[in-house]
Amino acid sequence: MRILGIDPGYGIVGYGIIDSDGYNLNVVDYGVISTPKEESLPARLNIIADCLTEIINTFKPDEIAIEELFYFKNQKTIIPVAEARGIIVYLCGRLCGKVFEYTPLQVKQALTGIGRAEKYQIQYMVKTLLGLEKIPKPDDAADALALAICHSQINSALNINQI
Amino acid sequence: MRILGIDPGYGIVGYGIIDSDGYNLNVVDYGVISTPKEESLPARLNIIADCLTEIINTFKPDEIAIEELFYFKNQKTIIPVAEARGIIVYLCGRLCGKVFEYTPLQVKQALTGIGRAEKYQIQYMVKTLLGLEKIPKPDDAADALALAICHSQINSALNINQI
Repeated sequence: MRILGIDPGYGIVGYGIIDSDGYNLNVVDYGVISTPKEESLPARLNIIADCLTEIINTFKPDEIAIEELFYFKNQKTIIPVAEARGIIVYLCGRLCGKVFEYTPLQVKQALTGIGRAEKYQIQYMVKTLLGLEKIPKPDDAADALALAICHSQINSALNINQI
Repeated sequence: MRILGIDPGYGIVGYGIIDSDGYNLNVVDYGVISTPKEESLPARLNIIADCLTEIINTFKPDEIAIEELFYFKNQKTIIPVAEARGIIVYLCGRLCGKVFEYTPLQVKQALTGIGRAEKYQIQYMVKTLLGLEKIPKPDDAADALALAICHSQINSALNINQI
């Protein structure tokens, strides 16, 4: 099964694609979609939509895992981040159909067993579980790979969190 | 000039379409897009996207005015409302190109001259300025017509607020 993990944002969207056979995980691709600050909101949302469409059409994921937002996390940026996430959820639903969402707590617990794990512990587990030589950069791409791994682990056990 | 006003939401999206020649305003259509509570988020976003696309393709507005969101207004619902607004802004940018946003304060000032105007004062002005027999219902549709009127007034004077 091919899984696309997405860390939503409107300046930077992280994405990570893995293949999972239930036991082994292999990284397929990862990176970020970034949008220029000087562009208008519709133009930036358009860039995200176009790039995400290309990623989904190129890699054809079977399922997609997206991070859930909490307003207390980034009060200042929550509105544009949620606006970008709306488009991401909409396009994923339209282009793939199987969309799941996970909280940061669920991702931490799935990867480390600890809900209060630090960022570097998650990143270290991403590197280890995917057999990579280095921690993937930037952080948004590592976070997206963590979401994809979380989905492979939770969903291989329980078919939950679908939205 | 034909203007589409949109009051964003994810349970209910209000829309209102007016024609303006710079002096006279005529109502073309108004109403709401509503999405069922029992549906998933992607399904609800899909309904909004499909209905909005049909409205824009049917009425072919020259310009679109969308209400700006503030997180302090609805802390509880701000995330799904912003997610829906992201799709609305994205589709309006793609299908029309000329998208503007106004704060509730700007709408109140444009319609009544008073930033602290009450809801019924706005609705009364919508009815009066459009020469309607009754206040348009539901409130979301009246709010959307108020946005379209606000845009016709502000934009006939100053070409600002484009996003």
